[in-house]
Amino acid sequence: MSRKITYTPIGIIRSPFVKPQGTPIQPAYAAGVSGTVEVFEKYRAGLKDLDGFSHIVLLYHFHRSRGFNLRVIPFMDTRPRGLFATRAPKRPNPIGLSVVRLDGIENRILHVRNVDILDGTPLLDIKPYVPEFDGDADVRTGWLEKARKSVRRRKADTRFG
Amino acid sequence: MSRKITYTPIGIIRSPFVKPQGTPIQPAYAAGVSGTVEVFEKYRAGLKDLDGFSHIVLLYHFHRSRGFNLRVIPFMDTRPRGLFATRAPKRPNPIGLSVVRLDGIENRILHVRNVDILDGTPLLDIKPYVPEFDGDADVRTGWLEKARKSVRRRKADTRFG
Repeated sequence: MSRKITYTPIGIIRSPFVKPQGTPIQPAYAAGVSGTVEVFEKYRAGLKDLDGFSHIVLLYHFHRSRGFNLRVIPFMDTRPRGLFATRAPKRPNPIGLSVVRLDGIENRILHVRNVDILDGTPLLDIKPYVPEFDGDADVRTGWLEKARKSVRRRKADTRFG
Repeated sequence: MSRKITYTPIGIIRSPFVKPQGTPIQPAYAAGVSGTVEVFEKYRAGLKDLDGFSHIVLLYHFHRSRGFNLRVIPFMDTRPRGLFATRAPKRPNPIGLSVVRLDGIENRILHVRNVDILDGTPLLDIKPYVPEFDGDADVRTGWLEKARKSVRRRKADTRFG
């Protein structure tokens, strides 16, 4: 189980944050900050239908992260905590996860808001944000909307019927 | 930007799902299904404080996934969609993301519920689920609770003050 897993960036994230020091810790603290996600040409066809979603999940590589400690004092705390109970970027596998608002897509450029990500960060994956999967918020879910409602009905039927 | 990124599993996910065919597509459809996450001994110290969270984010490698198409017909639909507008496991970088309920931790074994993950899946990362970052739900957030309240107050002050 120590077999290595290799990924290749599918794009690059652009933001106003060029130094780790000034970068917000989480999207909630980067409210309104705009950025772009440049998806490489070869993956462009995969962006179809994404514009129906108000929010998307970005997975990326913390490229400035080096090493890790299993105990860290988080930004919002004064005591050392277990690394996996924090969102610290220095992790055994430094994968970042941000839910951002999608303002629009032009060609292969995504315009996003609430970006807490360093400029130049390699993008690994984009997923649609779906409240039933990832939590709940003021979101739209594009083509999934209808299927979600039918799932909700089915669940309600099971629970109350 | 086509530089390769290498990760190493930090654990392994155990579930009742041994074949891709029977595995639910998302945790919402795996409601109540129990599984375990075995974190390797060398990372155990990083689990401290995680038990304060009701939900956690699991990032893992879709180890049974081979290749990908940029257009796919999703489980919940009948029309081809852009891959990145779906949660299909066959992706350029096949990273899976699930928000699961954490029932408890014994030593380095996490007992989780709502597991939509194949048995034997390599674990890449664990993050605490935090509604302000990842959405909203019926969650607890352990040691972060106090800091979150203060953040909410500060945001309310800015908005209404």
